[in-house]
Amino acid sequence: MASKLYGSAISGNCLKPAMLLERLGAEWEWVAVDILAGEARTADFRLKSPHGRVPVLEPRPGVFLPESNAILCYLAEGTPWLPDDRLDRAQVLRWMFFEQNNHETSIAVSRALCNGYYDAALDPEERQERLRQLRGPGLAALKTMESRLRREDWFVGPGETIADLALYAYTHTAGEGGFDLDSFPGVQAWLERVESHPRHIRLADLLRR
Amino acid sequence: MASKLYGSAISGNCLKPAMLLERLGAEWEWVAVDILAGEARTADFRLKSPHGRVPVLEPRPGVFLPESNAILCYLAEGTPWLPDDRLDRAQVLRWMFFEQNNHETSIAVSRALCNGYYDAALDPEERQERLRQLRGPGLAALKTMESRLRREDWFVGPGETIADLALYAYTHTAGEGGFDLDSFPGVQAWLERVESHPRHIRLADLLRR
Repeated sequence: MASKLYGSAISGNCLKPAMLLERLGAEWEWVAVDILAGEARTADFRLKSPHGRVPVLEPRPGVFLPESNAILCYLAEGTPWLPDDRLDRAQVLRWMFFEQNNHETSIAVSRALCNGYYDAALDPEERQERLRQLRGPGLAALKTMESRLRREDWFVGPGETIADLALYAYTHTAGEGGFDLDSFPGVQAWLERVESHPRHIRLADLLRR
Repeated sequence: MASKLYGSAISGNCLKPAMLLERLGAEWEWVAVDILAGEARTADFRLKSPHGRVPVLEPRPGVFLPESNAILCYLAEGTPWLPDDRLDRAQVLRWMFFEQNNHETSIAVSRALCNGYYDAALDPEERQERLRQLRGPGLAALKTMESRLRREDWFVGPGETIADLALYAYTHTAGEGGFDLDSFPGVQAWLERVESHPRHIRLADLLRR
């Protein structure tokens, strides 16, 4: 039976598991959730995702797994996207925790602010102030990525792992949040490497599912 | 040979691996890093931790693993703190990603602001504004924890896992950031359960190592 993925086509977090499911050639069903209309915050949806967020994976009927990076780990188990070696596996997770703590919170939030995804009530001055606060942390995250990607093709080991997919999700839309990647050539070359996968999927593809 | 743990005794993130190492009865060496003096941001320290953060684990000489939750996963492998079952394991990770994305970024950052740990240059008005911004996300994270802990003793399965240790780290200091736990009785009872472990260690214990 096909897994169900509840998500939104404006969310990089939701793109992550979709990218992996496609790469794995899995059968999966996309269930669109209108997060801008608050559909992820209803009492009903919170039975699937207590914190009211997407994506949520339903790997079998009635079993729900929220958190994009936890879904990646679940799906990648036993595949080359999550190494078996204990240290390599921890290094994959290390980049994924960095992504959720330092990268998503600055680069994805800046994009959301610029695109008007949330806090419609936020006045323009407060929006600018928040963007200003996030600039330093966002650039620091990109610099840390660049320090790795100038020397290596992938974040861990010799091939693409879920660390790459997790970090790709909001790096490829960094420009929408005002982060120019011109001074990060290693990051740019890596984005192209990720996108060169024959089964690569984009946010726009999710809209058509 | 004993693992080395580089960290700071003011950091809940650093308490996490110390808690697990003690619970496992491991031999380990504490290497104090003065993060307020910028010791984690030097070029030399960035060879261990590219993003300039603590903790870092050195499980064997010359091998470095940053990110508190990745260190927990590494150390917990093969122990009851990280279940073998694929779905249970993913649920553990799911709470740990929630911790780094929604909980640490609001509750730990509020504590750091209140305690004057960083941004000494921040003027009082800006500090208040940031605390105001973090209030809603912090309360939402506690509410999500409470919704689980009113029904269950632990975050995943029948016993303590690294999901509990990760979430304990900054929940037990939430008051220092202005978050009153009185309206979260499930969270309070769970804090006591975590603290009742016979080999429980506290931040103050790290100062004395």
